[in-house]
Amino acid sequence: MPDLYQELSKLADSDMYPFHMPGHKRNLESTPMKGAFRCDITEIDDYDNLHDAKGIILEAQQRANRIYGAEETFFLVNGSTCGVLSAVSAIVPEGGRILAARGSHKSFYNAAYLKNLDIKYLPYKVNTKYQIPETYGSEDVEKALDESIQAVFITSPTYEGKCADIRGIVEVCHKRGIPVVIDAAHGAHFGLGAKSALPENAVSQGADLVIHSVHKTLPSMTQTALLHVQGNLVDRVKLKRFLSIYQTSSPSYVLMASIDLCMKYIEENGKEFVDRLLKYRKLLEDAAKECRFIEIPGRTIIPDAAKVLIYVKNAAMTGHELYDILREEYKLQLEMAGEKYALAIISGWDTREGIDRLISAIRQIDLGISAKKTLKPEEEQIKVVSLPEQELSIQSAWDTEKESALIQDAVGRISGEFINLYPPGIPLIVPGERFSKELVCDISRYIKEGLTVQGIVNRKEVICVKPK
Amino acid sequence: MPDLYQELSKLADSDMYPFHMPGHKRNLESTPMKGAFRCDITEIDDYDNLHDAKGIILEAQQRANRIYGAEETFFLVNGSTCGVLSAVSAIVPEGGRILAARGSHKSFYNAAYLKNLDIKYLPYKVNTKYQIPETYGSEDVEKALDESIQAVFITSPTYEGKCADIRGIVEVCHKRGIPVVIDAAHGAHFGLGAKSALPENAVSQGADLVIHSVHKTLPSMTQTALLHVQGNLVDRVKLKRFLSIYQTSSPSYVLMASIDLCMKYIEENGKEFVDRLLKYRKLLEDAAKECRFIEIPGRTIIPDAAKVLIYVKNAAMTGHELYDILREEYKLQLEMAGEKYALAIISGWDTREGIDRLISAIRQIDLGISAKKTLKPEEEQIKVVSLPEQELSIQSAWDTEKESALIQDAVGRISGEFINLYPPGIPLIVPGERFSKELVCDISRYIKEGLTVQGIVNRKEVICVKPK
Repeated sequence: MPDLYQELSKLADSDMYPFHMPGHKRNLESTPMKGAFRCDITEIDDYDNLHDAKGIILEAQQRANRIYGAEETFFLVNGSTCGVLSAVSAIVPEGGRILAARGSHKSFYNAAYLKNLDIKYLPYKVNTKYQIPETYGSEDVEKALDESIQAVFITSPTYEGKCADIRGIVEVCHKRGIPVVIDAAHGAHFGLGAKSALPENAVSQGADLVIHSVHKTLPSMTQTALLHVQGNLVDRVKLKRFLSIYQTSSPSYVLMASIDLCMKYIEENGKEFVDRLLKYRKLLEDAAKECRFIEIPGRTIIPDAAKVLIYVKNAAMTGHELYDILREEYKLQLEMAGEKYALAIISGWDTREGIDRLISAIRQIDLGISAKKTLKPEEEQIKVVSLPEQELSIQSAWDTEKESALIQDAVGRISGEFINLYPPGIPLIVPGERFSKELVCDISRYIKEGLTVQGIVNRKEVICVKPK
Repeated sequence: MPDLYQELSKLADSDMYPFHMPGHKRNLESTPMKGAFRCDITEIDDYDNLHDAKGIILEAQQRANRIYGAEETFFLVNGSTCGVLSAVSAIVPEGGRILAARGSHKSFYNAAYLKNLDIKYLPYKVNTKYQIPETYGSEDVEKALDESIQAVFITSPTYEGKCADIRGIVEVCHKRGIPVVIDAAHGAHFGLGAKSALPENAVSQGADLVIHSVHKTLPSMTQTALLHVQGNLVDRVKLKRFLSIYQTSSPSYVLMASIDLCMKYIEENGKEFVDRLLKYRKLLEDAAKECRFIEIPGRTIIPDAAKVLIYVKNAAMTGHELYDILREEYKLQLEMAGEKYALAIISGWDTREGIDRLISAIRQIDLGISAKKTLKPEEEQIKVVSLPEQELSIQSAWDTEKESALIQDAVGRISGEFINLYPPGIPLIVPGERFSKELVCDISRYIKEGLTVQGIVNRKEVICVKPK
């Protein structure tokens, strides 16, 4: 079966002349973006319609579906963002209640805002050594479930590569007839390749709705994703309604073709892709084992092979310093930097040359450190971070009258904005929550330390709900 | 100033290696979509962030802003759809009331659903000769305005190229402090080139919010658009909030680069682009003047030069027949077909060769008809189409319990779905409206005639609100 890109190429090579959108008319003479423009069309005869797929787009979606094995799979051209918005909008009624992790993507909070949801949070646990959020087991969810919960939203893998016990979580939820949405934006490669080479995919673990970015860890274009649905707990009509609401009525065939090319590639070369990914991760871990101050945690700690957490022991160097050195001195652009580590994302499309450059950079940087420091053992714990009290729903707090206040004067007041510490971008406070004395101290400290705190005005004010 | 595509090319040509998303790593060896993948990155250092633009994306947005002259301009990577959703969400409170044309794009109805709005419709007028929706003057809006109206939403130009009196409409609305949103998805080329060569742009006519698709009539990639804002009637903070809600957190740099390349092209070659567009339209009109049965209305009837309405007199041939002949016998793919016409979209990037192919096709087709028919004069009127009574808001009807009913049994019942006749896709009935005897007859007739009626189950049932 030809892929979407081939269908588009066929059209581009044909004598068919476009008197329709887009206005660039696939006129390659006039643009440097030849590869893209050539295949950029609109919903013309025989080229199907994403919002009512019956032809080549349906076939392409079915190809993706064969790989993951859900009951239905949808292409997303507005990223995992529109998948999360659609999934949450479809499974919880207006004003409903949902159980979720604090570390959920902002699209989850936006969905809660749009549908005026009440969120119950799972305990927010952080690994003290690596300073990364922990993940969840079925017991965490079982403990938190109560009669009021209508759906559960879990992110797995996390941005840093931790994996939840999805099978167990799904089991305890389904026993109560509660649907589970897994934001697996970073886990589209799971379950591919040789069995159990990578963590199991959220789809085969039985989640009702699974969102996969295909541009993060698989070779598709940025902004492309998949939404999978299975089981009888999700209203499919409503799900399709929201997909057509949150996505453009002029979806890009270039983006759709890119998803399909990616799926076809995985179908034909998935094992090689995963084998290379695993080999690269192993090479990097092995190289770090010879370092004194740099550690790359193995897959028992970071199960996702695509996430290479380059950790610096004894704070010999901050993650930001490491990130900057790799970028400026070695021309290696990493994904992000945390307080104690820099994070690299690798895939089966990395080149051996690129991996070798990272390996030699790590070795040289480690030598540079170890010359001037001595090594002390570090302890590792799981700390539960207390969350602010919730006073209002996100919608009522975000939509009401607000005013700014000096951070130190905010104690006891209700926030009218999100305040995030980036990275990892998990909200310190959400609209409708009350500022505690501790939180106000933390925020002030983060600002003094020059960290990126989103949602602060002029580096000294916060937005509060105006008292009635 | 380099454009975004140049910035991306520079990166692609540099030694910088990507250990970040997207997973394709810009590895051109592995993809046929080279032009696109080469520039497909994520928010890395120095490459700015669409949702908080301060660098090269802000500069690119400012370039677009210089062309149109609003106070602020935003790039949209989820099409005009997200511009309409954001504009309407930002200017009307939850449960508010808005005045709009019945022929508004479905994203307008979706915004009304999400915000539970109450819609007051302008009279729905149709041109009986061409069978296309008419547009609006300030008197239509002034007559419809009342104390309850919080905002006005107008589409101009229409899909078929009719233009509203935006300046007059804005004047009567601003007198009452009411903001005006213009869905100018099809009018991004207006006001470009030599003064008054094309209709004036909605921005310079003073609309508070203007949505421009840049892929419909300008040479940018499908799914790209602009949102312009000006004046003090729009809460900019809220507008930005909704733009970040309705658009992916991983916006495509390929799409953004395409918008910027398009704007740069217009900045440098806008006049030539528009001159070619005008010349092409004139050539087509002149060719049709020599035809007996085929008419291409001039710009007094269809002011938008980009819309070529190829009308067949005396129903000598249906628009669909004309469309099929052009496609199958002449390999000319038009935008759409109506009952009495086929619609071609042209732009300044069309080739003279393409235009000439369309001209000779029209001439030959006309000869084919005129051989076997005689010509009678046709009358032209503006008919007001009555709309169904509104009983419930779209949200309450769309979200409540529903059941299907045979079309003929639906008289007097409340619709639980949208039913659209396509083209032009204007809703025959909206959730919350009551089926009249006349409407039920019309729907049955359309189905018998084999027209595309969206929202009908098995070609014989409609979805109704379940009686309590």
